[in-house]
Amino acid sequence: MADLDIASLQERLSEFAAAREWGRYHTPKNLAMALMVEAGELAEIFQWLTPEESADVMSDPEKAFRVRDEVADVLAYLLQLASACEVDVLTALADKIDRNERRFPPPE
Amino acid sequence: MADLDIASLQERLSEFAAAREWGRYHTPKNLAMALMVEAGELAEIFQWLTPEESADVMSDPEKAFRVRDEVADVLAYLLQLASACEVDVLTALADKIDRNERRFPPPE
Amino acid sequence: MADLDIASLQERLSEFAAAREWGRYHTPKNLAMALMVEAGELAEIFQWLTPEESADVMSDPEKAFRVRDEVADVLAYLLQLASACEVDVLTALADKIDRNERRFPPPE
Amino acid sequence: MADLDIASLQERLSEFAAAREWGRYHTPKNLAMALMVEAGELAEIFQWLTPEESADVMSDPEKAFRVRDEVADVLAYLLQLASACEVDVLTALADKIDRNERRFPPPE
Repeated sequence: MADLDIASLQERLSEFAAAREWGRYHTPKNLAMALMVEAGELAEIFQWLTPEESADVMSDPEKAFRVRDEVADVLAYLLQLASACEVDVLTALADKIDRNERRFPPPE
Repeated sequence: MADLDIASLQERLSEFAAAREWGRYHTPKNLAMALMVEAGELAEIFQWLTPEESADVMSDPEKAFRVRDEVADVLAYLLQLASACEVDVLTALADKIDRNERRFPPPE
Repeated sequence: MADLDIASLQERLSEFAAAREWGRYHTPKNLAMALMVEAGELAEIFQWLTPEESADVMSDPEKAFRVRDEVADVLAYLLQLASACEVDVLTALADKIDRNERRFPPPE
Repeated sequence: MADLDIASLQERLSEFAAAREWGRYHTPKNLAMALMVEAGELAEIFQWLTPEESADVMSDPEKAFRVRDEVADVLAYLLQLASACEVDVLTALADKIDRNERRFPPPE
């Protein structure tokens, strides 16, 4: 079974694209564009829902499948963009949380 | 030092939002919308670049910072949406790669 | 034949939604979200194209149909959002061009 | 005073870009990407609002200015993309409404 960590998934995505010779399409610009398109497909699931309906979205098996599927697509393009730009996504996020903790101090 | 894995970052994001009482804003719908908005901010860095310039984006320290910062923002909202929907992002992506390997067989 | 101007199209869109009782879905927030989703579908047509291929996109009849179709969807949600917010889109754009002419003076 | 119709605004946008020699940036692909980015900036205004707050967004003068400003930006890129692809936006939308009237018949 494949290891379930970010680095292993990033490696699988990289091998997947290389085997299909998709590398020439995978410029950072194209990957950023594809990421935004997939984020749109994820948002589409929620666009006409009330806040309450959106909180309950996973109780519908068909919608739940779509949410998981689109979350995966967004993550796939995010990781491929990060590989192309040599960004370590975990470090980038940890650094951002650090900055946000200084920028938005918690209420007393 | 904080552990650098997805589950730990997801926990930090959850505590960060809880401490600021942002939970009521964090419906799946709002998080999906914020994710798309952040994906737009990431794409903005690349929108006027040629493919070649986009491949070289990280050689500019100011743009490199923005890329890391926006990648972090996209991941932050993706993880918060995943928490709200109880989606395991690593499993979702591994399953999606499995499906894609069947859907797009590699050339012989 | 229907008049082809913005106001008439805005009126047709309004009657279309009213006849289907879609008004309760058409909050400014939902319309802004749907607009972004449609902009993503328009961008999807171009995401893997080179700049040169994108300049030639209309020579492919199937892609040309999709471009016209998605341009129409983006405009439809933009006009419905503008109606909901009582924004006159033509005045808003004329004012913005005025501001941009002051902000970005043309080279000598 | 400038005429306020789509064709005149499209002409002003075209002259504006030509005077600044921005034409080489304005491939259909880049314009579609910029359109999506601006749609994201418009959506950002609404992302944390309740449906009720979003319906009342124009009562806040600062938010009302942003809505008009971002609506103008979205329309500007949509018209520039339409010019680049020789799409008549009014005809495209009228045709789309015709198709939708057949696809979604009104309830009896």
